[in-house]
Amino acid sequence: MKPVSLAQKLATFHEPWQPRTVGTFNGHDLMVVKANGAFNWHRHDDTDDFFLVLKGRLLIDMRDASVTLGPGDMFVVPRGVEHRPRADEEAHVLLIETSGTPNTGDTATAAPRRLA
Amino acid sequence: MKPVSLAQKLATFHEPWQPRTVGTFNGHDLMVVKANGAFNWHRHDDTDDFFLVLKGRLLIDMRDASVTLGPGDMFVVPRGVEHRPRADEEAHVLLIETSGTPNTGDTATAAPRRLA
Repeated sequence: MKPVSLAQKLATFHEPWQPRTVGTFNGHDLMVVKANGAFNWHRHDDTDDFFLVLKGRLLIDMRDASVTLGPGDMFVVPRGVEHRPRADEEAHVLLIETSGTPNTGDTATAAPRRLA
Repeated sequence: MKPVSLAQKLATFHEPWQPRTVGTFNGHDLMVVKANGAFNWHRHDDTDDFFLVLKGRLLIDMRDASVTLGPGDMFVVPRGVEHRPRADEEAHVLLIETSGTPNTGDTATAAPRRLA
């Protein structure tokens, strides 16, 4: 029962697009991730996708729109909506998804779920 | 489909302990709240309680422990655990709970769910 410092957790790794689980909540994984460059286009049919930018700037492309998030900006990609997160420079993000959701939308290509 | 600036939403109201819903996610309400002073002791039997401090300092008392959160610190109170959030000075917090959860743990005394 300790608070989790998201900045401390983010300081434990460097690779972009490799989320680290830092807690759980109602069947969801609470994750931090470093965004850098473009991730792949994907979608999650069974979960909305929560993004909160902690540092830097994150763009989320969807097929018919694109949003830009700075620190303290939150966005939820509804389930089933194709999207591609990207960042021109490293950005730090809090992610929330149903536990076990493959980050690429596909278990074959997903990053392993790791703890930080 | 717009990003939500949590700081902008927090600037629209002043009353402490009156959460404002700023989005929804997988059957949960995403809320911002201003903490100031001590809230009441309560518990939620049907939902974990997610806290992320955005500004200031939040204490969460539980019956056998107390945690202190600063900006960028996250804490999840497990369902069923009695707790009392408090802040000596105004703190800004992102809260996530199952949609419709009474903030006091009791519909009779709960703040109305309002949008910001």
